[in-house]
Amino acid sequence: MKSLLLAAACAAVFAVPAVAADLAHDAVAVRDRALSDPTAWNILESVTTEVGPRPVGTPAMARARDWGVATLKAMGFENVRVEPFETRAWVRGTESAEVISPYPQKLAILGLGGSASTPPGGLEAEIVVFPSYQALLDQPAGALKGKIAVVTQVMRKTQGIAGYGSGVQPRAFGAAEAAKRGAVGFLLRSVSTDDTRLPHTGAMNGEPGIPAAALSTPDAELLEHMAARGQPIRVRLNMTSTVIPKAASWSVVGELTGRTNPKEVIVVGGHLDSWDPGTGAIDDGAGVAIATAAARLAATTGERPRRTIRVVMWGSEEQGGSGEAYAAAHKDEAAGIVLAGESDLGGDEIFQARLPKGSMAHPAMKAFMAAAPGLKVIISRDPAADGGSDTEGLHALGVPVVDFDQDASRYFDLHHSADDTLDKVDPKKLAQNVATWASFLRVVADSDIDFRALAKP
Amino acid sequence: MKSLLLAAACAAVFAVPAVAADLAHDAVAVRDRALSDPTAWNILESVTTEVGPRPVGTPAMARARDWGVATLKAMGFENVRVEPFETRAWVRGTESAEVISPYPQKLAILGLGGSASTPPGGLEAEIVVFPSYQALLDQPAGALKGKIAVVTQVMRKTQGIAGYGSGVQPRAFGAAEAAKRGAVGFLLRSVSTDDTRLPHTGAMNGEPGIPAAALSTPDAELLEHMAARGQPIRVRLNMTSTVIPKAASWSVVGELTGRTNPKEVIVVGGHLDSWDPGTGAIDDGAGVAIATAAARLAATTGERPRRTIRVVMWGSEEQGGSGEAYAAAHKDEAAGIVLAGESDLGGDEIFQARLPKGSMAHPAMKAFMAAAPGLKVIISRDPAADGGSDTEGLHALGVPVVDFDQDASRYFDLHHSADDTLDKVDPKKLAQNVATWASFLRVVADSDIDFRALAKP
Repeated sequence: MKSLLLAAACAAVFAVPAVAADLAHDAVAVRDRALSDPTAWNILESVTTEVGPRPVGTPAMARARDWGVATLKAMGFENVRVEPFETRAWVRGTESAEVISPYPQKLAILGLGGSASTPPGGLEAEIVVFPSYQALLDQPAGALKGKIAVVTQVMRKTQGIAGYGSGVQPRAFGAAEAAKRGAVGFLLRSVSTDDTRLPHTGAMNGEPGIPAAALSTPDAELLEHMAARGQPIRVRLNMTSTVIPKAASWSVVGELTGRTNPKEVIVVGGHLDSWDPGTGAIDDGAGVAIATAAARLAATTGERPRRTIRVVMWGSEEQGGSGEAYAAAHKDEAAGIVLAGESDLGGDEIFQARLPKGSMAHPAMKAFMAAAPGLKVIISRDPAADGGSDTEGLHALGVPVVDFDQDASRYFDLHHSADDTLDKVDPKKLAQNVATWASFLRVVADSDIDFRALAKP
Repeated sequence: MKSLLLAAACAAVFAVPAVAADLAHDAVAVRDRALSDPTAWNILESVTTEVGPRPVGTPAMARARDWGVATLKAMGFENVRVEPFETRAWVRGTESAEVISPYPQKLAILGLGGSASTPPGGLEAEIVVFPSYQALLDQPAGALKGKIAVVTQVMRKTQGIAGYGSGVQPRAFGAAEAAKRGAVGFLLRSVSTDDTRLPHTGAMNGEPGIPAAALSTPDAELLEHMAARGQPIRVRLNMTSTVIPKAASWSVVGELTGRTNPKEVIVVGGHLDSWDPGTGAIDDGAGVAIATAAARLAATTGERPRRTIRVVMWGSEEQGGSGEAYAAAHKDEAAGIVLAGESDLGGDEIFQARLPKGSMAHPAMKAFMAAAPGLKVIISRDPAADGGSDTEGLHALGVPVVDFDQDASRYFDLHHSADDTLDKVDPKKLAQNVATWASFLRVVADSDIDFRALAKP
């Protein structure tokens, strides 16, 4: 209780000082414009309709690149360019699964990124069902010889990403752990908080050397019901895929050049690639749309800000590669990057800002705090921002990052499944998200805030 | 208002007379036992796990028949038998659809029952999108020559079946109407109230001679977004299917013989067949489970009732045939069938009973009304029961029917899609449904109520 009371007392001194009054005015103006601006929705509608799914290593990714360039140019961005890189890409082929005996039925599966193909004609084996990942890990060496391991652990729905952080472990490591114990195949209850019969894919940590797939949640429960009867359950898997060791990939970049300090750059973006079953609306068309629309609103509401805002559409987040490639290519300019931010958790509302360490008392951040309550965005009392997949490379180079925590309670119903489609995005929630980013970008871009200096003890 | 006040006044005279006190006691006892009885859930878990999807004309239907016989025998039913018949069956082969140009993407489809196959190699044509079925009907002859007609009309969610009654029209007749106007293919926004990327299949009224499929709701909206850009959208369909003109089919029957009047029969059931994408849990594993469990509870709580309760698992509802076959085979005993009832709207709660015409004042129905309020079941003031697909044949022969209106507000989220799985059924709601049927069956079976006589003016 004491710490809460202290926080309330502190809030009283957060009133905006005169020096920040202009910034605060602009933050509110950008926010209010953003709340009724259709740009993000239009970008999202465009990429999902005209490009659709954009897996790295496929022709769709080249179309996505061209779409990104055309979109940024049409919106008035400057220095629009493509930054090529190479990355390892796993590309899905055909997939099917069925129970052979004693209760023949088809199963709905989706291969996990990095899965091996089955032998021609498929792989048939008895399953062993584990209700938790730990139960699989508890198996001794050789215990799963010749078997298909099935982990049916249920993911917990949370407002933030805690449920996913825990739930994703068996997807990342389960197949490798099963293979170590002799398994010839691996099936996982989808890392999902929904009950539709649509499996959720996602990358594994490396390539385990055995076929590995996600079951839809009803299929995972079906196998539990079958296994509970005590008879051996035999399953046949048919899966093909291709690995492209050095797939041509691209990040797409555009800038709105700063008025007085163009070399001071704020990097903001989302990722352009997506998994294949949906149209990549929430993951991460939304992030691309939010970052692009917010940058434009921040830079075009009133006078152009002092600093440059750069939008990056990273080209290979799902299977990794674009964050690393971007950091490597921009190592030499890292010192000039004021801040980096990434939107990659869908299009629902932002409920909390985690500002860079030590920055909360700065007039620019107080100006942002003047706009935030109108969006119901709380300012985290634990300001440890740590970036995401595509900014952690920059962060490791010393670039400060900001995190906006989004409501993820619907996100993992849809994420990495065929249900990742435009209709799942609520335009009003998307606008709140854009407004938060836009007002924040405005105050950072039009101030002299130095997050590095503020972070020093 | 007047009529409502009148109804309230009438309610006062609905107190149970002494002659019905025993029946009312039994109705309540059966109800309360049913509310904690797991039989229906166990039947449903068994058929979805051990048989799964059960389309007519496939080997799964023969397994379903054997499952039905074994289940009824194991539960103590008497005179367990299979009643064979033949019916026309449409069996799905392989199906795929994709936009070819200008925005290549895969589409999620599911062929409609009665669809033609595409030519080998598929069918490619330009689409014409109609936002309503009426807009298609308004087209003159020849207007759709060489085109694929797409109807994206949205289904309204309702508590009862009004939304489906309206929404199903373009599924039943749309392909034939499109073909009449020259179309070479037909796509329909699924008759669905959900937004998952799972299409909903269903039978057409006959065979329109062109390929016809349901799009998932996100795919229907995707085609609308594409079409709005004004360029020609070309789609390729690949669909195969087989028609079996006289598929061997079976209804499965069991009885709990009446104590004193065994020839007076109450027929109650659901349908054993299902569509193929799900496991046939809500449609109509639930109906089979409800009818079977309710019959058993009604007949085994206290003394065996006077009349016979017969459970029928009809063998071909989805594509039609079993109701007609049953009525034809039982024409001669129709006069001895006291009442027929059918459960075919999932496993959610019953909110309203529509009793046979003229029966509300009979002591047996008053006994049922003593049990109904505890289940929050209202008694319809418009008592016109009309039966369902599998009982309308009996009804046409003069057999009285009862209708229990179920809450269908979730049903069409799932119906005829891969999402028709066990996990979608709520055991508590299922138990309320069984309790309603069971208490009703008890009072009818243990009374001398003659619905035919009561219906006479």
